[in-house]
Amino acid sequence: MARVPERAYARAGVDAEGAADGVRALVDVLRTIDLGRPSRALLGSGHYANVLRLDDRTGIALSTDGVGTKLIVAEQLRRFDTVGVDCIAMNVNDVVCVGAEPIAVLDYIAVEEPDPELLSAVARGLKDGAEQAGVEIPGGEVAQVPELIRGHPSPYGLDLVGACIGTVDPDELITGANAEPGDAIVGLPASGVHSNGLTLAREALGELDKAPPELDGATVGETLLEPTVIYVRAVLELLRSEADVRGLAHITGDGLLNLLRLEAEVGYRVDLPLAPQPIFDLIATRGAIGAAELYEVFNMGCGFCVVVPQVDAPAAVELLGNNHPGAAVIGEVTGSAGVVELPGPGLTGRRGEGFSANE
Amino acid sequence: MARVPERAYARAGVDAEGAADGVRALVDVLRTIDLGRPSRALLGSGHYANVLRLDDRTGIALSTDGVGTKLIVAEQLRRFDTVGVDCIAMNVNDVVCVGAEPIAVLDYIAVEEPDPELLSAVARGLKDGAEQAGVEIPGGEVAQVPELIRGHPSPYGLDLVGACIGTVDPDELITGANAEPGDAIVGLPASGVHSNGLTLAREALGELDKAPPELDGATVGETLLEPTVIYVRAVLELLRSEADVRGLAHITGDGLLNLLRLEAEVGYRVDLPLAPQPIFDLIATRGAIGAAELYEVFNMGCGFCVVVPQVDAPAAVELLGNNHPGAAVIGEVTGSAGVVELPGPGLTGRRGEGFSANE
Repeated sequence: MARVPERAYARAGVDAEGAADGVRALVDVLRTIDLGRPSRALLGSGHYANVLRLDDRTGIALSTDGVGTKLIVAEQLRRFDTVGVDCIAMNVNDVVCVGAEPIAVLDYIAVEEPDPELLSAVARGLKDGAEQAGVEIPGGEVAQVPELIRGHPSPYGLDLVGACIGTVDPDELITGANAEPGDAIVGLPASGVHSNGLTLAREALGELDKAPPELDGATVGETLLEPTVIYVRAVLELLRSEADVRGLAHITGDGLLNLLRLEAEVGYRVDLPLAPQPIFDLIATRGAIGAAELYEVFNMGCGFCVVVPQVDAPAAVELLGNNHPGAAVIGEVTGSAGVVELPGPGLTGRRGEGFSANE
Repeated sequence: MARVPERAYARAGVDAEGAADGVRALVDVLRTIDLGRPSRALLGSGHYANVLRLDDRTGIALSTDGVGTKLIVAEQLRRFDTVGVDCIAMNVNDVVCVGAEPIAVLDYIAVEEPDPELLSAVARGLKDGAEQAGVEIPGGEVAQVPELIRGHPSPYGLDLVGACIGTVDPDELITGANAEPGDAIVGLPASGVHSNGLTLAREALGELDKAPPELDGATVGETLLEPTVIYVRAVLELLRSEADVRGLAHITGDGLLNLLRLEAEVGYRVDLPLAPQPIFDLIATRGAIGAAELYEVFNMGCGFCVVVPQVDAPAAVELLGNNHPGAAVIGEVTGSAGVVELPGPGLTGRRGEGFSANE
């Protein structure tokens, strides 16, 4: 769930400044909704998920997100059995960020044509993702709206969106507010670009059917379609452990700047980044894209971050590494509020401004 | 929420048979999801909403639906301040059908361009709908995906989808299973076509800017855009009254055949139908559309039905009529399982088969 639009897309046809204005116009109206009773919402609109307090024991976490232009890659490859995983992943990884256990996802599938083969393949991905995340899919909607959807090519056009609910004890909500300078940031490896930055990646990479040596036998299209990793089971295990989990950040559009969505007045220095997958090098080279833009748009190898006190870091790394080999401490929380430092590529990022090269 | 696709659309470019096959292919896979634990779902996928049992006191009702091709009318009129009402209405009217109180809606808005004026207008409709329904909008997603969305014309293209949650005591779930032959069907007036059948309506009516005398000064476009009625407050009041509410049916695509979504093995005879709005006559005449197709695609003046014992009917009509003038007993439950009889137009409808003229 992100009312915060992606930045840095101007070159690939996504108007980031305009999007910010548009979202602001929307939110400015929605925040005036008056129900004549207090809101049940425990968080604002900028976090990964909101939480409604039903009673003292029960909070319902809610989030919605779509697969976006990764669908175009699926259409061009005529391969529809992985995007369902992305749909589940984008939603459940958001919901777990507030400390909630995702329990269900609803899907919305808009199609040009309700081709049984296409829809069956989409369903296989949804099932795979649902089983990985431990969520059920108790309902959904298939809309046959050829006039609304563009195909690549027609009639393969589709949109795929999820809405996820989870449960959390309101007293055990995780907002990031407890993160403190000196805390460890543990990074969990991504599988590639996940479901963000596909517009820029596609523009940079060009033909999807080529298999450049850097990709070790796979084609560009296959590599881009690699499904988003689902971090839910590992994170839930960590939440049930003795570790003092202080912040959880799904690294989506805006890359490591997502850490700034945690509610503490702190900063983050990532000096031991996880290794980016080869696809990111290829995007950088082929598209002549600078480091600042890369780190603003892509996860660059790290799909999820966990903030814990240093004393809990070794156990957290071990536990998370069982599900996600390569999990490691990648940096630490700093006192520079609103700043993300990346000493490796020499970048500093600020809330609302993106990354720029250090002087 | 409807995995059951609309029928009878073949003529206007919506392939109803194909849609049914596609949805079946999807659901056949999704029903094999294995979480290694029992499902929390209390209903199947054909009802208006599903309900997850959180504990003995708390069920969470869930549903998702979009505005569909009504958005094209909004684009062509450049009038975006009402479709948000439809988005809320289509979802909350579904959730209330299981006896749940809708508490929140998430919105997903896909746009070609994030124009602040367009998004602000969409938000005004969402706010209006949310206040009518008593739901909050604790989050949502704006996706700028010009490659996925077709505009009418560009760059005004958008898709608008909601996901709604509500709360219900699992012991007070309403499924329709208690409906009995002889019970009264109370109909609540629609405001016009609501958000179903717009593809056929647009095809039949042609130019949107004409103001035929039948529409009493309004243009075709304005009349089609009339927002879907939100029945939530009236239905919740009825649920809190002494009346024995046995079935609740939101009349959407498939028209009065929606009554067959109630879980009782009964039928329905509507011999005192509410008066259809003039727009339906115009659609019938201009499009040369027969009664069977009209009653399969459109609500024909009745947007919601309530089933109560005859003894409770007068009080139910009075209570519902306070919010929805014109509410009236329109017929009764019969013993002909799976059959909807419309003596007026001389039609009989069966589950999965649509309406046909009586011999």
